[in-house]
Amino acid sequence: MPGKEVVVVGESEWQSLKLLTAVEDEFGGLNVEMADQPMDAAVFAIKLRASISCWRLQGKKGVWMKIPIEQSSLVDAAVKEGFWYHHAEPNYLMLLYWLPQGAHSLPGNATHRVGVGAFVMNDRRELLVVQEKYGFFRGKGIWKLPTGVVDEGEDIFAAAVREVKEETGVDADFVEVLAFRQSLKSFFQKSDLFFVCMLRPRSFDIQIQESEIDAAKWMPFEEYAAQPFIQKDELMNNVVDICLEKIDREYSGFTLMRSTSSISGKKRYLYLNSSSLEIRSNMLVGPRI
Amino acid sequence: MPGKEVVVVGESEWQSLKLLTAVEDEFGGLNVEMADQPMDAAVFAIKLRASISCWRLQGKKGVWMKIPIEQSSLVDAAVKEGFWYHHAEPNYLMLLYWLPQGAHSLPGNATHRVGVGAFVMNDRRELLVVQEKYGFFRGKGIWKLPTGVVDEGEDIFAAAVREVKEETGVDADFVEVLAFRQSLKSFFQKSDLFFVCMLRPRSFDIQIQESEIDAAKWMPFEEYAAQPFIQKDELMNNVVDICLEKIDREYSGFTLMRSTSSISGKKRYLYLNSSSLEIRSNMLVGPRI
Repeated sequence: MPGKEVVVVGESEWQSLKLLTAVEDEFGGLNVEMADQPMDAAVFAIKLRASISCWRLQGKKGVWMKIPIEQSSLVDAAVKEGFWYHHAEPNYLMLLYWLPQGAHSLPGNATHRVGVGAFVMNDRRELLVVQEKYGFFRGKGIWKLPTGVVDEGEDIFAAAVREVKEETGVDADFVEVLAFRQSLKSFFQKSDLFFVCMLRPRSFDIQIQESEIDAAKWMPFEEYAAQPFIQKDELMNNVVDICLEKIDREYSGFTLMRSTSSISGKKRYLYLNSSSLEIRSNMLVGPRI
Repeated sequence: MPGKEVVVVGESEWQSLKLLTAVEDEFGGLNVEMADQPMDAAVFAIKLRASISCWRLQGKKGVWMKIPIEQSSLVDAAVKEGFWYHHAEPNYLMLLYWLPQGAHSLPGNATHRVGVGAFVMNDRRELLVVQEKYGFFRGKGIWKLPTGVVDEGEDIFAAAVREVKEETGVDADFVEVLAFRQSLKSFFQKSDLFFVCMLRPRSFDIQIQESEIDAAKWMPFEEYAAQPFIQKDELMNNVVDICLEKIDREYSGFTLMRSTSSISGKKRYLYLNSSSLEIRSNMLVGPRI
């Protein structure tokens, strides 16, 4: 049984107490992974109090404590010691403690969900549209663009390509972000960013995703745009106008440039208007029309 | 004392048991607010088990349970009953239970943090730059664009204007999103979307934010661009090129259009390239250059 040595802990006995294991970060903070050190709630409470005192003496700042859901019995003790919640994922809770006096300067939680809609048109001026099984549009007979949510760790352009493939079976290449909109506090006080992406189809046979989609087809663009629901909705109408501009005139959205950060060394994508840019180069990726 | 009537609960006694109070949502789900019904953990455990059985018989689907941090003693019992974490904010934890057989179809948590950087130039081709007190750039002597994080419930363009005002005291109007980049899994598996915004200054006197900023000034753009750190960083170099294109040539970013959704009735902003758009109208807001 872990922690058996701790029965009564007085001020003078702290030095002999085995504290919680913590890993230092580059900002003077500590990271505590409870998955690596299982113990029961009573032992945890004693060790935590002693550890906090010790960390404070050491001049540490923020303490990040990750408690896996299997150890949910520890949550209450951490809160009673002064921890608060930073974020949670299905299988863990991250708690936070700020040791110095005054307000903390630690980064907040994620604030946005990101969605994509795909504008995919063939050479016959037909748009790839779907009818959804669930959600607001269910059973309303409305034909709409394939849409979906960007997964954690997924690029926006890749999400658009994936959603089209999943929902309709059509292979397509990313061309541009035509526009985006932000909806504030649209779920649990979080906001929503939605990117309308133009894709160019590489295949045309439709195979629908049975679990989410009732129907999919290539539909004349004007027929899509004439649907009463689209006509009535200012935002959807604006998107129709943008798509028409893109097809018939000179609209330039944001395409992709692969770029490396010297800070992280990671490759990332920059979305920008490359049509008017002199720096067009081999860094630009994906097809352009 | 709440729930005193519950001592032993057998199958036959469920009907006399006061269940947890839950509010139905439009998707066949239930919302349970524990802040409205305080009770101790033992009573909660009994009521929760009975409530789940009842809700299952009623054909309910997802159960969303919001437990304020003051009631953290209830978390363990909820997890033991099969709830998992959906998300957490500093003062509460949202747990989730899926009553039907099979995988749930409920929306996930927020996945992105959103940041802004502001490109603000005066008529003398001087750029508004700062040196930060904290973070990666601390003590490196690097002059950089004012940057910041978009608050929950805040528009991107408004965040850019606010950050410039806070850090430097300069009033400015939003002009365009010049580009944006997405960094995958940049903190706690979450991603980061960063929008480079062009603003037009309305005032020029600088008053720095003592808490976060060491120095701020108007600096000749070419001097900013010539800093070794900027030169070395591919991404920052790309942004310099975009800014130069914007000043000297024909670059069009995404400006704002206010648009109303007929679904939610809410006003939102669409970010789009209006320079090539025939639908330019009084819906377009903010100054254009």
